[in-house]
Amino acid sequence: MIIDCHGHFTTVPRTLHEWRARQLESHGVYGKALGISDDELCDCLQCKQIQVQNERGLDMTLFSPIAGQMGHHLGTPEQSVEWSQVCNDLIHRVARLFPKNFVGVGQLPQSAAATDFGIAASVRELERCVTELGFVAVNLNPDPSGGYWKVPPLTDRAYYPLYEKMVELDVPAMIHVSSSCNPCHHHVGAHYLNGDTTAFMQFLLAPQLFKDFPTLRFVIPHGGGAVPYHWGRYRGLAQDMGLGKLDEGLLDHIFFDTCVYHQPGIDLLTKVVPTENILFGSEMIGAVKGIDPETGHYYDDTRRYIDGAAHLSAELREAIFQKNVLRVYPRLKQYIDN
Amino acid sequence: MIIDCHGHFTTVPRTLHEWRARQLESHGVYGKALGISDDELCDCLQCKQIQVQNERGLDMTLFSPIAGQMGHHLGTPEQSVEWSQVCNDLIHRVARLFPKNFVGVGQLPQSAAATDFGIAASVRELERCVTELGFVAVNLNPDPSGGYWKVPPLTDRAYYPLYEKMVELDVPAMIHVSSSCNPCHHHVGAHYLNGDTTAFMQFLLAPQLFKDFPTLRFVIPHGGGAVPYHWGRYRGLAQDMGLGKLDEGLLDHIFFDTCVYHQPGIDLLTKVVPTENILFGSEMIGAVKGIDPETGHYYDDTRRYIDGAAHLSAELREAIFQKNVLRVYPRLKQYIDN
Repeated sequence: MIIDCHGHFTTVPRTLHEWRARQLESHGVYGKALGISDDELCDCLQCKQIQVQNERGLDMTLFSPIAGQMGHHLGTPEQSVEWSQVCNDLIHRVARLFPKNFVGVGQLPQSAAATDFGIAASVRELERCVTELGFVAVNLNPDPSGGYWKVPPLTDRAYYPLYEKMVELDVPAMIHVSSSCNPCHHHVGAHYLNGDTTAFMQFLLAPQLFKDFPTLRFVIPHGGGAVPYHWGRYRGLAQDMGLGKLDEGLLDHIFFDTCVYHQPGIDLLTKVVPTENILFGSEMIGAVKGIDPETGHYYDDTRRYIDGAAHLSAELREAIFQKNVLRVYPRLKQYIDN
Repeated sequence: MIIDCHGHFTTVPRTLHEWRARQLESHGVYGKALGISDDELCDCLQCKQIQVQNERGLDMTLFSPIAGQMGHHLGTPEQSVEWSQVCNDLIHRVARLFPKNFVGVGQLPQSAAATDFGIAASVRELERCVTELGFVAVNLNPDPSGGYWKVPPLTDRAYYPLYEKMVELDVPAMIHVSSSCNPCHHHVGAHYLNGDTTAFMQFLLAPQLFKDFPTLRFVIPHGGGAVPYHWGRYRGLAQDMGLGKLDEGLLDHIFFDTCVYHQPGIDLLTKVVPTENILFGSEMIGAVKGIDPETGHYYDDTRRYIDGAAHLSAELREAIFQKNVLRVYPRLKQYIDN
């Protein structure tokens, strides 16, 4: 079985984008129904995500709202709450319509405009996502200010109420920025990878966080940003700062997905990072949509790179494709056929 | 011959740091002499950088002021000018004392507090560095705001006067952030690599820049940040956006150094990026100072990784160690014995 831990509903009907635009124009809680029918949902999923799952032999995708549209730097805190609910409810409908294909992962109502950055509201939405909607994880934005990094690091105690709830519910968070409103940072070409790199270093610097929450788990997407490529730098920095070895402690809590869109990158990732810390992910129909002329296959068809990593045994591949995901997302088990 | 394109005077006598602290306390141009003798300079270089050069078999280092101390987010624009002059004059003395070991690379008086971000002053200091001090390049900070990214991208026309002067003098710039005053971003563990990744993407997005300046050249340090690890992502993004192939156009202008502190990282860099775009660099006695227990050698002894990259021929190694550096930094030739 192959479980893709990193999918967004990027092919959502335009109606959702129009709803959001009108909500932001309203300068308050919008209150209107979304108005997307089950037929519309089925159509747009069957001709895109499900078709691609089938073509690539993927069984299931952990599916969340579009990361780039979370927009925690836009609107009021109340609008962020409403927008998260609308997006998460839509994901819930998708997961009910196609329970074998999709399992929900939630968007949090973080907000650069809220005095607590939306953490209290995020705790409530996390609880709703898991206990009412059956989601197995959430996405956590390390920069709700959209590329200006005006909010404290993820290791700040301001985030502790959220981490308490994550631990209580036994769900991980994928660290994932949203779009960039900073002209310096292209969203998927810079801001995404920078968010991953920055978050990893925040966690490395603050071992107290994982003493306070011994079961807290984060997935760092896009292959960990710059981190595995610079694994020697991070091993050396940890050593210089007296923080011990990366694989003794920190890696009980930090996992990387495989959203790296060429064979040499996946080869490096899987050689450098312990296999138990690597989770299959593709973020398909996402940042990079084309076909690689060097291979004749889609850049984001990351299953091919795992299959093509000659040094991986069948057992290690199975760990990446399935076992590690099930271990990091324990609530996923309820959706797997025995 | 082995030329290290990326060295900073990290072992500078404490007097320099004290001078800077007093300058910033003075809230204006400080005006005092630095007071470091030639003997002091010789001592601190001979027992550190030169000793390490000898141990590692490196012949020459392109040597610039400490990147982390450029501090373009600190003080007034006038203080930034004075601080750059003091630092560059010190590098000039080093290069005169040890002309076989060190060639100067300048710090620019960029300033987050200046209405033009210090570009006019940087043009003047660039000219002084090259025509009076004999420097062969400068460091250009893509984020003078120190981790908040409040200044326009490097492709903005605000930078054009600097690029005109770089082209006129035929010198490249190494893109290099300074320290981070943003608690989100650890300096060498996040901000440095993010700066590299962000700058690359800025250049990728703005092909007009290199149409306007067909001979403009930038070196992106730290192995290009996250870029080579995500080379497939960048090839795919360029393709999706109709920007052509990375190695047709962009790579006439962008070069990566080898400051990647483990063998798998260097293996990936040298397999993925065309060899003519890779320049030997170590940033020795810099971000990572320890010895890697996995190899028994210093993490930043990057010569070993180039020597250890089994797929590189002697010819390709020579290109990385010497030829490419001489091509990208043409003014360096005057310092090389024939």
